[in-house]
Amino acid sequence: MYKLLKKDGNARRGELTTVHGTVQTPVFMNVGTVGAIKGAVSTEDLESIGTQIELSNTYHLHVRPGDEVIKKMGGLHKFMSWNKPILTDSGGFQVFSLSKLRKITDEGAKFQSHIDGSYHMFTPENVVQTQSMFNSDIQMQLDVCSGWGVERKEAEKALRITSDWFIRAKKEWETQREKGYKGILFPIVQGNFFEDLRKQSAEFISSFDMPGIAIGGLSVGEPPEEFIKFMNYTVQYLPEEKPKYVMGIGTPEYILDAVRAGIDMFDCVLPTRNARNGSYFTHDGMLSIKQERWISDFGPVDKDCNCKVCKTYSRSYLRHLFKEQEILSSILASYHNLYFLNNLLKEIRQAINEDRFEQYRKDFLERFHSGAVDQK
Amino acid sequence: MYKLLKKDGNARRGELTTVHGTVQTPVFMNVGTVGAIKGAVSTEDLESIGTQIELSNTYHLHVRPGDEVIKKMGGLHKFMSWNKPILTDSGGFQVFSLSKLRKITDEGAKFQSHIDGSYHMFTPENVVQTQSMFNSDIQMQLDVCSGWGVERKEAEKALRITSDWFIRAKKEWETQREKGYKGILFPIVQGNFFEDLRKQSAEFISSFDMPGIAIGGLSVGEPPEEFIKFMNYTVQYLPEEKPKYVMGIGTPEYILDAVRAGIDMFDCVLPTRNARNGSYFTHDGMLSIKQERWISDFGPVDKDCNCKVCKTYSRSYLRHLFKEQEILSSILASYHNLYFLNNLLKEIRQAINEDRFEQYRKDFLERFHSGAVDQK
Repeated sequence: MYKLLKKDGNARRGELTTVHGTVQTPVFMNVGTVGAIKGAVSTEDLESIGTQIELSNTYHLHVRPGDEVIKKMGGLHKFMSWNKPILTDSGGFQVFSLSKLRKITDEGAKFQSHIDGSYHMFTPENVVQTQSMFNSDIQMQLDVCSGWGVERKEAEKALRITSDWFIRAKKEWETQREKGYKGILFPIVQGNFFEDLRKQSAEFISSFDMPGIAIGGLSVGEPPEEFIKFMNYTVQYLPEEKPKYVMGIGTPEYILDAVRAGIDMFDCVLPTRNARNGSYFTHDGMLSIKQERWISDFGPVDKDCNCKVCKTYSRSYLRHLFKEQEILSSILASYHNLYFLNNLLKEIRQAINEDRFEQYRKDFLERFHSGAVDQK
Repeated sequence: MYKLLKKDGNARRGELTTVHGTVQTPVFMNVGTVGAIKGAVSTEDLESIGTQIELSNTYHLHVRPGDEVIKKMGGLHKFMSWNKPILTDSGGFQVFSLSKLRKITDEGAKFQSHIDGSYHMFTPENVVQTQSMFNSDIQMQLDVCSGWGVERKEAEKALRITSDWFIRAKKEWETQREKGYKGILFPIVQGNFFEDLRKQSAEFISSFDMPGIAIGGLSVGEPPEEFIKFMNYTVQYLPEEKPKYVMGIGTPEYILDAVRAGIDMFDCVLPTRNARNGSYFTHDGMLSIKQERWISDFGPVDKDCNCKVCKTYSRSYLRHLFKEQEILSSILASYHNLYFLNNLLKEIRQAINEDRFEQYRKDFLERFHSGAVDQK
């Protein structure tokens, strides 16, 4: 499934082969929460953005339109008209972050939908069934995510349940495979911000020969240095030959840190959320398009970006669209931000190929943090 | 400027040449109120929609970002990155329909912006100056629009002021032309729903050799039969050799009636407003995507539409996007509705070329009103 092509320090170039095609890693996965890739209208758009793989949320799709609709429509690929790989998360994180009234027991997670107040029960088995019904190329086990700063006791309990649920998820996944499902399942390392728990979880997961491994419970409110520390700490206990996925990161800094730690996959809603708030990625730092100073600025958002937004529109016009709250503002900004991040990953892959990742990272961050965007 | 190519009954095929290119008429003008064509992201999109000419609102652009910004940016074409013809309205209709606290005097229209409460004064002269600053290919005179059902006295006054303002607008336009502005100015026929006033206005306007003529004050709340009656009544007093524009119509029925009456140009926000409400044009009538019955419907919105939305997505998926209030829902629906209307005009032009407009109209409306969309 995963082929390690090249190493440059701990940074890795690889290929992950799925039912719907091969993904070049490291890769940023565009998030289409409800099965819609924000910011992209056409297949050509998705291609020019450089989208290799799309991530959808089991939680959202389970609540609306529901498993049965997607099954009837022939799976998520057909429903969305997206013919490349899809990764679905298990819903564990959304139960943790979005739902009202949740109750975690050994059996599963009972929760009330944040959308319509309806009650649902996720079990390790039924989320595998749902994701198999979606025909996900890569599915995640149900896990228990705990936040930054919880007591050791809570972290221990979350880990124990996550580990038990992995065994049950794996069994159900094997049943689904026997029935013809071809997708793969990733277990999730938890352990909160306790080194021994992280080690215990990583070693436990590594003792199974799974197609890939996710690291969960990071980027949940902790300071950046804790994020880096625990990511690096966890990775060392995971087998080199497996693709590794850190969930929920989407800033250039975090991505560069993750690649440096040997991580292969990431996802985040940040680029499109930022976009809707008028915040654009640029090589010179984050650009807030709402600022007065862009009102009659001819220049593009980022003169070194080759995306069609930067090639076509001025800051003046994009600011105007944002101020007018035109839908087009969100669309153009999302397009740009996704293009920017996917292009960052493309450049990272090339740098690794050419044994110059450290230099690339240093140069990128130096410019990104230079404050140049604020000195125009 | 305008070349009449062919007549089929009163329906006409023509060409209108502007500084930024030639427009095939009859034409539907896509409305980009604030200088953004809703539903289109790229030049390829605009081309595949069939957009020939774009309409922007002087009122909105004057309030935000303001004349000076657009002037600094080199005019509206450069500001929007749109290199084809642009028509701007004068703001008269928006003063009538949108602004708080308006006061019409012989001098001009004083109003408070609906956006930020700021005070503005439109005069026949300054709106010509503004539209010349925008570098509009086709600009409109400032007029006084009166609604359906007003007293004769009010209609008379509105007409008298509109006629006076035309003389002043024409003078200012000639001054702008001497200074190098190359766009054209359309006067506007008013007269409300009084035949003698409409006749008087049409004959007055016709006595000047202007490049084109707009008919205003229709589609302001009157029943459809009154709309048709007054449109036809007015047209007969206008010179055949001039392009004629009926402002604010955008349903297939109204467009087919207008073409039949000999009208060449129309515009309306309806296709994109409908789109945002989940209402799609189809050959079988209007389709409301929010309905439960589409929940797992594989079919396209309109199997006889060749747009990329209909070629790519199912009703089930589009319904899901609408229910999730995804931005993509508005974008895809706007794209489809604009494509549908522009394609309708393309077919109308072809039907006129081939002397079968009446048959085309009959067939289209029969199917459009068949209720077939509700019988699936």
